[in-house]
Amino acid sequence: MQSKTVKPFKPFSSFTRRDFLYRAAAVGGTSLLLTTMNAWGMGINSTVSAPPALTGSGKGKKVVILGAGLAGLTAAYELGKLGYQCQILEARDFAGGRCQTARKGFALTELGGEKQTCAFDAGQYINHGPWRIPLHHQSTLHYTRLFEVPLEVMVNENDHSYVYSENAGPFAGKRMRIKEVKADMRGHVDELLAKSIKNKQLDQTLSADDQRLLLDYLVHEGHLSATDLTYSGRPGRGYTVYPGAGMEPGPGKASDPLGFKDLLESKLGNVYSAVHDFPMQANMFQPVGGMDAIPKAFEKRLGKVIRYRAEVQTIRQNDKGVTIAFKDTASGKAGSVTADYCLCTIPLSVLRQIDTDFSDKFKKAVATVAYAPVGKIGLQMKRRFWEEDDQIYGGHVLTDLRGINTISLPSSNWQKQKGVVLGYYQYQTAAIEISALSPAERAEFAVAAGEKIFPQYRKEYENAFSVAWHRVQYNLGGWAEWTDKTRAAAYPTLVEGEGRIMLAGEHLSYLTGWQAGAIESAWQQIARIHARASA
Amino acid sequence: MQSKTVKPFKPFSSFTRRDFLYRAAAVGGTSLLLTTMNAWGMGINSTVSAPPALTGSGKGKKVVILGAGLAGLTAAYELGKLGYQCQILEARDFAGGRCQTARKGFALTELGGEKQTCAFDAGQYINHGPWRIPLHHQSTLHYTRLFEVPLEVMVNENDHSYVYSENAGPFAGKRMRIKEVKADMRGHVDELLAKSIKNKQLDQTLSADDQRLLLDYLVHEGHLSATDLTYSGRPGRGYTVYPGAGMEPGPGKASDPLGFKDLLESKLGNVYSAVHDFPMQANMFQPVGGMDAIPKAFEKRLGKVIRYRAEVQTIRQNDKGVTIAFKDTASGKAGSVTADYCLCTIPLSVLRQIDTDFSDKFKKAVATVAYAPVGKIGLQMKRRFWEEDDQIYGGHVLTDLRGINTISLPSSNWQKQKGVVLGYYQYQTAAIEISALSPAERAEFAVAAGEKIFPQYRKEYENAFSVAWHRVQYNLGGWAEWTDKTRAAAYPTLVEGEGRIMLAGEHLSYLTGWQAGAIESAWQQIARIHARASA
Repeated sequence: MQSKTVKPFKPFSSFTRRDFLYRAAAVGGTSLLLTTMNAWGMGINSTVSAPPALTGSGKGKKVVILGAGLAGLTAAYELGKLGYQCQILEARDFAGGRCQTARKGFALTELGGEKQTCAFDAGQYINHGPWRIPLHHQSTLHYTRLFEVPLEVMVNENDHSYVYSENAGPFAGKRMRIKEVKADMRGHVDELLAKSIKNKQLDQTLSADDQRLLLDYLVHEGHLSATDLTYSGRPGRGYTVYPGAGMEPGPGKASDPLGFKDLLESKLGNVYSAVHDFPMQANMFQPVGGMDAIPKAFEKRLGKVIRYRAEVQTIRQNDKGVTIAFKDTASGKAGSVTADYCLCTIPLSVLRQIDTDFSDKFKKAVATVAYAPVGKIGLQMKRRFWEEDDQIYGGHVLTDLRGINTISLPSSNWQKQKGVVLGYYQYQTAAIEISALSPAERAEFAVAAGEKIFPQYRKEYENAFSVAWHRVQYNLGGWAEWTDKTRAAAYPTLVEGEGRIMLAGEHLSYLTGWQAGAIESAWQQIARIHARASA
Repeated sequence: MQSKTVKPFKPFSSFTRRDFLYRAAAVGGTSLLLTTMNAWGMGINSTVSAPPALTGSGKGKKVVILGAGLAGLTAAYELGKLGYQCQILEARDFAGGRCQTARKGFALTELGGEKQTCAFDAGQYINHGPWRIPLHHQSTLHYTRLFEVPLEVMVNENDHSYVYSENAGPFAGKRMRIKEVKADMRGHVDELLAKSIKNKQLDQTLSADDQRLLLDYLVHEGHLSATDLTYSGRPGRGYTVYPGAGMEPGPGKASDPLGFKDLLESKLGNVYSAVHDFPMQANMFQPVGGMDAIPKAFEKRLGKVIRYRAEVQTIRQNDKGVTIAFKDTASGKAGSVTADYCLCTIPLSVLRQIDTDFSDKFKKAVATVAYAPVGKIGLQMKRRFWEEDDQIYGGHVLTDLRGINTISLPSSNWQKQKGVVLGYYQYQTAAIEISALSPAERAEFAVAAGEKIFPQYRKEYENAFSVAWHRVQYNLGGWAEWTDKTRAAAYPTLVEGEGRIMLAGEHLSYLTGWQAGAIESAWQQIARIHARASA
């Protein structure tokens, strides 16, 4: 089922790591890195780490909040503290929005798809929405700390893991340890530069002192021989013989380096860069037991504020208030809520299909932004072969296998019998194509790819749970995908809101796809509501 | 109390990262990296990950094991499975040897020192002996897995942490984020090389194709401008303005890079290298709640096999068996044990002081190897300021402050109120000097150093627990420090054992200071005992 817009998956050569890994493993839009707008005008610190310090009271005022995702939950919690009477209308029978965790019994029926019921063993799960919290996302970490949601490290970099590409020249179709590629590319490059300095090929560029200092650095960083500046491997790339005990145990004949020309030709050096770019820097976190611990912590504190199974049908407002009509998805009965203000956190992909009385300009803005097709699959394996056989503990197998992008190993249940592997994290046309497959076919697709890298894959595969966010009824996409053009056209209008209705969500942030985007957007917009209500 | 052999702490320039970090943060001897011996002759795989597969039975035979550290516990457990009747004589009233965890109530009296009783809050602790398990140490991980000791990631690399040196030229006395040093050194170096290639200064070295591929790599790795190959910062080094939500939120004016000359002069580029060298590669682990979970798991399974408070006084053997005389340290009463064989795991630093009937040659070998003076201190802080204020979650602050070497942040109790910081990890003369101080003076030393880096340090400091392993009665050192010379002179003799007595422990390995060294040594030596007993 080839779409007309199928593009061959870019080989490493034309992907910067930013592109490759960011598309492969990031949950943020590329516009994050492209726009050059100024600091936020509302005067909150550049790393927003706390809710706005609002004074006054919301007593006697009602706010209806549409959606119990992270933005809606945050808004209800914070406005509640100010005395506002809030009610959240949530279409599902649980809170969290995209923040979901699939474990035994979790059910999902995509539009036009079969019902899936997750069959993972007790204790196993997959975070098929947000799956990691960057250390910089102090807004998300504000609530995990406040609500005492226990965190654990989510291993996001593991050089002992593999990189696998079928377009890697001499290393095509060969799984390589990432650390070998790193150690050897850097060693060879450092050798080249060191020798150029030694041979006085760079005299005009650096002073003699600086050359000496640079040589020192290169010998150190690249593990070069101090005498002849050559790179011939290092312990960090691995040993053929490991150090051990007893009489003649090593301590380690370092394995031979990969050839410089081969490495250059393979372009595998492009899977890493000098440092991790924001937001992927170590350390990253996940809540113990599943990301949905976060919405659950909100739910516990909001209680009856949230009305579940309330699917919004119409949105109306006048100068006196707002009226939201909804349908109870269990009984089919119609209902309605009136309030002084409304904070609508419904994804724009869904909102554009709802009957509202927004101005044409506003409706046009709502309809402007595209939403990302995104697919993820969790594969329960009977045996943690990646740990037992390959000594890979967490992290990602980097690959450009189409529709896979990354195979990610779990950072939970260390050394237990079983584990759930993220079998693919796909985007764009591959996500659209694979999502047309049935759950069983999607699993076969993932297993057929994975077994190219891990021979144990098929034998140990047990069952799967997959999601295609663009086919999920109340989301219709993974996240908002702004471009400079659409941001310029629609974003200010949406942030401004209209009348008594404000919008909030990851789509109204520069952290699209991140929980922090939703939370920080909510913080901003409740400040607006409060300012308006206090006026 | 200056020793004649005081050497000024080496500034970064003459330390390779191997030296600096390895001495600063490693628990392994430098001989690990220096010797070039061949693969272990006994035929076990180079990465030893399982006990020797021994057949036959030890039924009817007695083995007395001296010491309930990791070597002794391993030996008793494995020999017990073969039917041997084992008894461990352990001087302390708990098992683990150096594998200890200090938590509330843990008491320690060093030779010539005050009694310390740890006063950390419930849930807080410090692993003052072994504190991390490398992924490669499959022998240690064999037992954590077998005994279902829950593990968590021990964060051993955190680029968001600081490096601080008072000898860093233009950056002396300035705490720097490690990621900035990395990003900028690599960016500048990549720029230099890229421009050299562009300017055809390296024509003779690389073909035109290779130059093109290398340029591509450098632009990517170094985050260079594709047009003019310059480095002017990158998101990975941090932003002046972070991406956020709302109208004008960033998305991130990247902060300006540090100057190349300044960086060269500071020599801070030597705190990292192309990849981590074994054994420090991500990921590293620690048992949840404290490293002593490992010996406790053995204790649970060994039960009465271990006799506590039995301090070995004499070791005798003849052609019929071995006789060990001990003193009960609680009652003072003398006791003795006879057995067919003895596995002695007592550290050589202590063994050399015990009355034995070894040959003169053997005694000389026992007396040959030096043991490392090592000091560690845990500082309980009232507030996890490194997380709250500095957004540093785990990892190390690298420093060459004398007697400090590293300040390490805990990988447990994320986001809780308090935490225990490793305030120093000291070696050699600094360790000897500082250990002469009282516990309170040691804490003051640590706080006075730490507050140079973290202004919050003194205010948040609450209490401390310190250890100087060279002053601990049953250890007299952190680990064995072999040199090529002493290994050649004594090691084969010790590994061979004498008569019915075999030795085992980290000292008889190439993984000195690591639990894996003790475990793998025990695996080897029980194989010898079994071979001898079966003959």
